[in-house]
Amino acid sequence: MLLEKINRIIQQKTSLLCVGLDIDIERIPSFLHKEVDPLFLFNREIIEATRDYAAAFKLNMAFYEVLGVPGWELLERTLAVLPRDVLIIADAKRGDVGHSSRKYAETYFQTYHFDAVTVSPYLGYDSLEPFLEYQDKGIFVLALTSNPGSMDFQYLTVDHTPLYVKVAEKVMEWNFLYGNCGLVVGGTHANEIGRLREMAPALPFLVPGIGAQGGNLEVAVRYATDDEGRSALFNASRSILYASDRADFAGTARERARQLRDQINLLLSIYKNLNFMDEN
Amino acid sequence: MLLEKINRIIQQKTSLLCVGLDIDIERIPSFLHKEVDPLFLFNREIIEATRDYAAAFKLNMAFYEVLGVPGWELLERTLAVLPRDVLIIADAKRGDVGHSSRKYAETYFQTYHFDAVTVSPYLGYDSLEPFLEYQDKGIFVLALTSNPGSMDFQYLTVDHTPLYVKVAEKVMEWNFLYGNCGLVVGGTHANEIGRLREMAPALPFLVPGIGAQGGNLEVAVRYATDDEGRSALFNASRSILYASDRADFAGTARERARQLRDQINLLLSIYKNLNFMDEN
Repeated sequence: MLLEKINRIIQQKTSLLCVGLDIDIERIPSFLHKEVDPLFLFNREIIEATRDYAAAFKLNMAFYEVLGVPGWELLERTLAVLPRDVLIIADAKRGDVGHSSRKYAETYFQTYHFDAVTVSPYLGYDSLEPFLEYQDKGIFVLALTSNPGSMDFQYLTVDHTPLYVKVAEKVMEWNFLYGNCGLVVGGTHANEIGRLREMAPALPFLVPGIGAQGGNLEVAVRYATDDEGRSALFNASRSILYASDRADFAGTARERARQLRDQINLLLSIYKNLNFMDEN
Repeated sequence: MLLEKINRIIQQKTSLLCVGLDIDIERIPSFLHKEVDPLFLFNREIIEATRDYAAAFKLNMAFYEVLGVPGWELLERTLAVLPRDVLIIADAKRGDVGHSSRKYAETYFQTYHFDAVTVSPYLGYDSLEPFLEYQDKGIFVLALTSNPGSMDFQYLTVDHTPLYVKVAEKVMEWNFLYGNCGLVVGGTHANEIGRLREMAPALPFLVPGIGAQGGNLEVAVRYATDDEGRSALFNASRSILYASDRADFAGTARERARQLRDQINLLLSIYKNLNFMDEN
């Protein structure tokens, strides 16, 4: 069960933070460029520095794919140094007709051993079925995203209901099978997040865009978590990874991750009347 | 301009056939397994055998990704032996928020030199903008797919209009910028294909599902092409690639490709009053 797995980790780590490993040669500290393997070195340092504060790590496949063959080697080596007590998410946003989706599911759950993968809903049930059949794994289905383009289709109204709500309804149905579904919900709009949380109390939310993309952390934490202040993971990538260009980049990343973890917990203590902070 | 490029190729090759290189170790002839590099060998033989009859080759990324690092090496080597007089399509169905989509666009148009890529519309304009900025390349946006799951969202009605038509309307807008857009339109339903073709006379269609997926070739060819019997590519993958398990697999694939090319041209001569057949 994806929800239980996530909430167990949240409890163990006292954290709802997801660290996004969006590796980018143009953004890592320039002094690393003289190293033999700067990208892996950077990932390894970031992972070591932030693992104490992370409930999850998310690898955005775009940043690995763009490197070609070395990018997939980097992915493999990065997966090998990730800790085992967190959720490992492939941010792949895949979705294809059945026999192709079967290969994508195999990629992320067998070739690589991710715990969960983000997927796109547009092709409907049989495009996600091959992922669902990995019952001990999980999918986060794109529902509402925080980018401007979300207005183009996600907000279109079907029977007085926005499309992103229709998507969430379907995902709730699919979740009845094996309990391994979640939603990707952008961290910007209070009303929309609250509506989705009310509709889907048993789905975990993956909330991107709270860092560099400018989402509102307060709104996101207040409305995306459940009454117990759980069932959601908040992702920050660039704001943690690229906080410093200097030799202390890992220390700075660690400090940023700790701050963000604590900010989330503080907001939970305010809005959900919880005492997460005491436990640290 | 994507449409002009496709129609020029169609004219030069007297073919609207796209051959889908869905490589699968479990489906290639078993005698190849004793070779050092059976997958590349298979791809190379299939390309050589079918290139005379193909206007395009389509590489479905799912089948390469699932192999891990060797899959991307296979992709690179396969791209290197593809002919230059056809359209090379990455069937990737990617789509992410802007800064991630920028990396995906770079992957397919710079790291690898595809002519076009399939993309998913769910995240809207800014998720596709990075692809569009490669003005001499092209995107095929998923509009209507031929799988059962297409009913889940694509047929939902927004202002008396199905979502897949709303998607097509947006793609027509985006095409005004640089003329490098097309649609993925499943080859099953005559009414829907005809409606899209009438709406979007200037968009090329990529029509999958006419082979093993059981789409109706007659309907697809009649309704997806324009009045001149062009502006569409019809993809077959498994029905060509895996037609024979024996030593003559390449010859059989060649024969299948020729037959399919001729069938399409025959249908064009019937429905569009064209004489493609005479030119061979």
